[in-house]
Amino acid sequence: MSQMIPESHKDLLEKPAFGNLGTLMTDGSPQVTPVWVDYDGKFVRFNSAKGRVKDKNVRRDPRVSISLQDPANPYRYLEVRGRVVEITEKGADDHINKLSQKYLGKLVYPFRQPGEVRVTYKIEPQKVSSMG
Amino acid sequence: MSQMIPESHKDLLEKPAFGNLGTLMTDGSPQVTPVWVDYDGKFVRFNSAKGRVKDKNVRRDPRVSISLQDPANPYRYLEVRGRVVEITEKGADDHINKLSQKYLGKLVYPFRQPGEVRVTYKIEPQKVSSMG
Repeated sequence: MSQMIPESHKDLLEKPAFGNLGTLMTDGSPQVTPVWVDYDGKFVRFNSAKGRVKDKNVRRDPRVSISLQDPANPYRYLEVRGRVVEITEKGADDHINKLSQKYLGKLVYPFRQPGEVRVTYKIEPQKVSSMG
Repeated sequence: MSQMIPESHKDLLEKPAFGNLGTLMTDGSPQVTPVWVDYDGKFVRFNSAKGRVKDKNVRRDPRVSISLQDPANPYRYLEVRGRVVEITEKGADDHINKLSQKYLGKLVYPFRQPGEVRVTYKIEPQKVSSMG
């Protein structure tokens, strides 16, 4: 069931391109918000904080979609549909710092809130579409 | 039930910021793709072609979400959740040309495919969130 990210569009997960993550609300309606994202060679990963809407959504229903546009050409894009197969706090602080470095050029994530518990989510790609 | 777009973030619908549209697939899972978008003062509108995945999706289930990031500051964004309350071919050719002008600076939409039937979708905003 797992699908690979095509070589032709893998760069979109390496560049600091925002992902737009679609999750499902309690009533099954879609929610979409921008996220930082990376790829570990198997899973597309994002990072959020415990208790946020998207955190609650994926714990209830793991089905998600992420859309990424090439910052250099918005008509070149990638959509990854799949399932969140792992939700973990382990390594999530290092992961948000890694994403901070990727997206902001800062070694330490600067937006941390007091008491915030960071969480890493791993998406297994099941249907990948690309354009451009 | 209808909610207004806050004055503070209305500019995101005027600027050539891409929308990332979340719709629902047959099995209820989310799909997210970039779209051109505008606002007529009441409805957030996008344009697609008859028979596309998102066209079929919103005809089956009108619940959608659109996320827009400020091109000048991606940490300033707007999410509009709501329902597609009107789907029409009337004026849809003029509408795609208007969007072409907004996003490409071209008076006539240049990506038209032979036989393509353009469609305008009007979203009634029901839950609006903004950040930054």
